[in-house]
Amino acid sequence: MNFLEERISRDGQVREGDILKVDSFLNHQLDIALLEQIGEAFYAHFREKKITRVLTVESSGIAVAFPVARMFGVPVVFAKKARSMNLDGDLYTSIVHSYTYNVDNVVTLSRQYLHGDDNVLIVDDFMANGKAVQGLLDICGQAGASVAGIGIAIEKGFQNGGRLLREAGYDLYSLAIVDKMEDDGTIVFRPHA
Amino acid sequence: MNFLEERISRDGQVREGDILKVDSFLNHQLDIALLEQIGEAFYAHFREKKITRVLTVESSGIAVAFPVARMFGVPVVFAKKARSMNLDGDLYTSIVHSYTYNVDNVVTLSRQYLHGDDNVLIVDDFMANGKAVQGLLDICGQAGASVAGIGIAIEKGFQNGGRLLREAGYDLYSLAIVDKMEDDGTIVFRPHA
Repeated sequence: MNFLEERISRDGQVREGDILKVDSFLNHQLDIALLEQIGEAFYAHFREKKITRVLTVESSGIAVAFPVARMFGVPVVFAKKARSMNLDGDLYTSIVHSYTYNVDNVVTLSRQYLHGDDNVLIVDDFMANGKAVQGLLDICGQAGASVAGIGIAIEKGFQNGGRLLREAGYDLYSLAIVDKMEDDGTIVFRPHA
Repeated sequence: MNFLEERISRDGQVREGDILKVDSFLNHQLDIALLEQIGEAFYAHFREKKITRVLTVESSGIAVAFPVARMFGVPVVFAKKARSMNLDGDLYTSIVHSYTYNVDNVVTLSRQYLHGDDNVLIVDDFMANGKAVQGLLDICGQAGASVAGIGIAIEKGFQNGGRLLREAGYDLYSLAIVDKMEDDGTIVFRPHA
């Protein structure tokens, strides 16, 4: 097990409905040293790609994007989940269905901060069905930007987001892939290739 | 002018209705090196306080909290703007009115991540009327936690959030206080004491 799988095994909590709570270190309370390890791991994997921007979506994605962008020496850009429109008019937009809240969110990104000459690393803390990442890919497509890869801290391997992205040919690097969560709280990780 | 005031003067954009846009470096695209300078400045000001947690509210506050918490070697905890309730039942909650969206948001924080023995540094990217900070202070009060201080990147000095907090005796440290925004786009900062 790598450092993140060990931490999930120790502090992650399995809840009914295949919910994995990692609130104590990843998306409510933030363990900065752990997030920096995640940043280093993503950097090690993608360092040969000439990344120009790290793209994520608010809000817990920001905590993963920060240390990665720091390693690469590039800016973070985060897409916003729009409610009203207090941004300038000139936006990329994509519709993302949230199963957690059962609503369609519009995610938006100012056209000022993503361009056709960008080589983007997309990152997020969690991926299940991959809808958020698909929204960010959609926005990269609108910008004409290249997608160098996708870095995910925790992937739910029993949902199909990761499979679809790998089949589509993306360099998807997930630090921990959860293949199964047992009723007794045991978390089964996919073995590393 | 300090580094942040210089950056605001260069890249901040004044919009009708006393709106100051700093999207290009602080709350949409993130300049990591600048945010680390902000973290260092907050650390320099509050370093004698024995901070145990850095508290902020999603989402752009996370980008300010990360480098500060890194300097102190403590976790970030960020309050969530609730819509539905996918958190555990045991929450601190406070109502925060957002003038930007003209809605009441409920901000929530799990009771697991803030306790009576905590000494909290509250940080945020922006403060105008101070409603978000008041919500975080309310939550600290519910937890019985001590508030060591408040660090704000940009304070709108022509709104009353900062004055109220200083009158209440808080150690409020704002890196840039905007006292006036002229029609021609000139931004007037409050002189440093």
